[in-house]
Amino acid sequence: VTHNKSFTLGELAKLLDLELVGDEQCKIYGLGTLAGASPGHLSFLSNPAYIDQLSSTSASAVILTENFVETCPGNSLISASPYVSFAHASALFVTNEAPAAGVHSSAVVDPSCKIDDSVAIGPNAVLEAGVSIGAGSYVGAGCFVGAGSNIGSNCRLYQNVTIYHGINLADNVIIHAGSVIGADGFGFAFDGEKSVKIHQLGGVSIGRDVEIGAATTIDRGAIEDTIIEQGVKIDNQVQIGHNCKIGMHSVICGCTAIAGSVTIGKYCIMGGASGAVGHITIADKVQVSAMSLVSQSILESGTYSSGTGHMKTSEWKRTIVRFSQLDSIAKRLKELEKANDKT
Amino acid sequence: VTHNKSFTLGELAKLLDLELVGDEQCKIYGLGTLAGASPGHLSFLSNPAYIDQLSSTSASAVILTENFVETCPGNSLISASPYVSFAHASALFVTNEAPAAGVHSSAVVDPSCKIDDSVAIGPNAVLEAGVSIGAGSYVGAGCFVGAGSNIGSNCRLYQNVTIYHGINLADNVIIHAGSVIGADGFGFAFDGEKSVKIHQLGGVSIGRDVEIGAATTIDRGAIEDTIIEQGVKIDNQVQIGHNCKIGMHSVICGCTAIAGSVTIGKYCIMGGASGAVGHITIADKVQVSAMSLVSQSILESGTYSSGTGHMKTSEWKRTIVRFSQLDSIAKRLKELEKANDKT
Amino acid sequence: VTHNKSFTLGELAKLLDLELVGDEQCKIYGLGTLAGASPGHLSFLSNPAYIDQLSSTSASAVILTENFVETCPGNSLISASPYVSFAHASALFVTNEAPAAGVHSSAVVDPSCKIDDSVAIGPNAVLEAGVSIGAGSYVGAGCFVGAGSNIGSNCRLYQNVTIYHGINLADNVIIHAGSVIGADGFGFAFDGEKSVKIHQLGGVSIGRDVEIGAATTIDRGAIEDTIIEQGVKIDNQVQIGHNCKIGMHSVICGCTAIAGSVTIGKYCIMGGASGAVGHITIADKVQVSAMSLVSQSILESGTYSSGTGHMKTSEWKRTIVRFSQLDSIAKRLKELEKANDKT
Repeated sequence: VTHNKSFTLGELAKLLDLELVGDEQCKIYGLGTLAGASPGHLSFLSNPAYIDQLSSTSASAVILTENFVETCPGNSLISASPYVSFAHASALFVTNEAPAAGVHSSAVVDPSCKIDDSVAIGPNAVLEAGVSIGAGSYVGAGCFVGAGSNIGSNCRLYQNVTIYHGINLADNVIIHAGSVIGADGFGFAFDGEKSVKIHQLGGVSIGRDVEIGAATTIDRGAIEDTIIEQGVKIDNQVQIGHNCKIGMHSVICGCTAIAGSVTIGKYCIMGGASGAVGHITIADKVQVSAMSLVSQSILESGTYSSGTGHMKTSEWKRTIVRFSQLDSIAKRLKELEKANDKT
Repeated sequence: VTHNKSFTLGELAKLLDLELVGDEQCKIYGLGTLAGASPGHLSFLSNPAYIDQLSSTSASAVILTENFVETCPGNSLISASPYVSFAHASALFVTNEAPAAGVHSSAVVDPSCKIDDSVAIGPNAVLEAGVSIGAGSYVGAGCFVGAGSNIGSNCRLYQNVTIYHGINLADNVIIHAGSVIGADGFGFAFDGEKSVKIHQLGGVSIGRDVEIGAATTIDRGAIEDTIIEQGVKIDNQVQIGHNCKIGMHSVICGCTAIAGSVTIGKYCIMGGASGAVGHITIADKVQVSAMSLVSQSILESGTYSSGTGHMKTSEWKRTIVRFSQLDSIAKRLKELEKANDKT
Repeated sequence: VTHNKSFTLGELAKLLDLELVGDEQCKIYGLGTLAGASPGHLSFLSNPAYIDQLSSTSASAVILTENFVETCPGNSLISASPYVSFAHASALFVTNEAPAAGVHSSAVVDPSCKIDDSVAIGPNAVLEAGVSIGAGSYVGAGCFVGAGSNIGSNCRLYQNVTIYHGINLADNVIIHAGSVIGADGFGFAFDGEKSVKIHQLGGVSIGRDVEIGAATTIDRGAIEDTIIEQGVKIDNQVQIGHNCKIGMHSVICGCTAIAGSVTIGKYCIMGGASGAVGHITIADKVQVSAMSLVSQSILESGTYSSGTGHMKTSEWKRTIVRFSQLDSIAKRLKELEKANDKT
């Protein structure tokens, strides 16, 4: 893609704090993958598996580690961490404009709200009594922020986000469209005939630098708060139950379902569509693979999985019949071993 | 958490219809867990596993069964079902105010709607022609209610909920933010080249005392209605396909996926992220564990599971190779057994 | 259900291009299943398993293949593909009115938008600068369309849909309520301490005749576009990651989670709550069964599954212990086989 911003390679080297091998005056208009880039694009090589694509790329410049400079047909920007440098570069080519400060005339803002002058409030947004919003933040069209909630500085709520009452967001929090923060946790006491609602009196506390995807839900706590610590990144369609605590810098991939009162450590990665049952603890630096269910606490860092690999359905049907016979298979094997020992 | 409501223990005992052992005049300002409570808090002991926390709690009073009164360091409220009593107590400490009756000036309400004077309609809500809403109900900011839909009394639609046309909600229904009731069921006839849409002409009927979480979707029926019976509780991010019937007082935990034309009995519990394939029946009082798939009808009450436990990924990789060999393992075992019988 | 439209069977035979065996003047007021239909209803027989219901149906007419005419108690409409003909018939009985053309006074539309006069824009919809919308399209209440996005002709966005900036929809695209198209893909580079955002500079391109369910999310590409080809049908609560390409006429059932950079072929079916890990390819005409995870590329068309069948939890608990012993079971079996060979 070619964007309507451009930089010389000299400027980029300075902005990204990288060493340039090549033409300082070369103009860069956008970013591209090694395979898809055109002249005027900046690309990157992070995974050595793509080295074949390096020699044939049309990119005008590539961010790479020093050892690949020779292979690069164009200009090189040398980085110890090309992928991280590329992430920084991506920020330079953002073109969708930040909304202008000010409250849109159609927004409904309670007079008791404390909103910094630099804040942008989009059309039809609704802010209830006592809401505070810090400098540089943006509340998109159709968002709702409930009574007494606090939103830090430089936050960005995309469209149609719902923040219930009494929720706290620190600075630099991004929430994508349609997400819901602070709906009631799923708590009921069964009285023998029906479910009696346990009113959810806690809140949600979201740390700085957290990003939350689209259509994700994070429930308020029953008594104490649900806590998302700083730096956590949460993808789309994730459900986080009441009274969970997600440790700092953990990453929760899309469609993950985390039941109530789960404590996840720091620097964990929950793979896509994974899950965790309620009232368990997951240690720091645990990685859970896609669609795996954590069915009891994990006390040691490491990589964990559940489930089975996929196979042709015809084969799979035979296999799951055998799966259901596993206990019998194991017992019969034991019998044979005993018999064999005697012979 | 300390709320801005307070009661004496004498008042609480009366309101909750419990026997008080202790100081009638003691003031209670909020609720707390046994471990987290401060003086002035009311707590509860339901699970005997927490008895150690009882003796050291700072709570001023604890709801518990009679046999634990001696162990309780503070005041006791005696209940045969402490968890249910605690649920009732939680309702007393709700502090977010009910919205005042009236239609917000920014709401767009068709003149043909029948809306009780006691109803509160939030900013930017949109009600199409022929909608009726019963006494005491609340429609949150940004909600949409389609033509001819009926909402009972004392219902609460949180923000940005979408109710399509021709949907019926009985009394006391709660729907959390971002949920969608009555979108088209997923029905197509494949004509050999493309999918031809089957227009979805049924509706959705939701019984009394149903609660529905955030970002949940319940599709309208193809010809007849999708039915959610009274007392059903549905968590966040649940998908219920067209023409399902969920029996009364069943509980559907978060992220559960129920395909079309599934009939679930009464008093069932579908665990988090569980699923059911289409056109099957699940008997009354069936419990399905987290992330289990019900792949055929279940005709007997009981607890059902699928999947595998989680393990270290290195171990799991070896295991799933063996899983794919299961049919061969079973056959080879059979061979050995035969051979052994002969010797 | 009885709708407020009616046709004679003669008219229906003409409209659906089917042969009528029976009374041309018979009035049809609505559609019904064989078992649920009343007099005045049109039904269909597609699956021969329902033949018993045919002989006892109260439907006034049934769409069926020629060989079942004799068995049909009422009038017959003969079709080579009764289900497809029924799909066409369903379109005739749609009664919810198309919204009238025009921009609602509460909608916020940037003056630079290019909107055909025949377009209907609902209350509180927000269209940013440079949006274009083709003839006959409808944008529902509370929708947001970001700067520079293009929406084709005869599209229908239901309520509270969010379309980010720079997204392209071809003609005849339907998107149900609460869905989000073009939120940022989930891309971060870990710098050893924290996740650095990779700004998502691509868009989303959606082909003609695509239908997308409620609360579904399709992310914008990192550099290039995420692509949904023509005729694809996507159910509710589906997540499609950045830079995926879904081939034409494929069907993605509810709650499916597709990670980033997945290429799915033409005419595939992803079953409900299924998943695919990132950076893989799935061939044309692959069917994946419900709640199965595609954990590596599938290069041949066919039906694929993962997971285990459900069973009573008591039995399942024994079975998964054995599952975790599978590697040991296989090795012990091998030992026995060796020992047996020697004897």
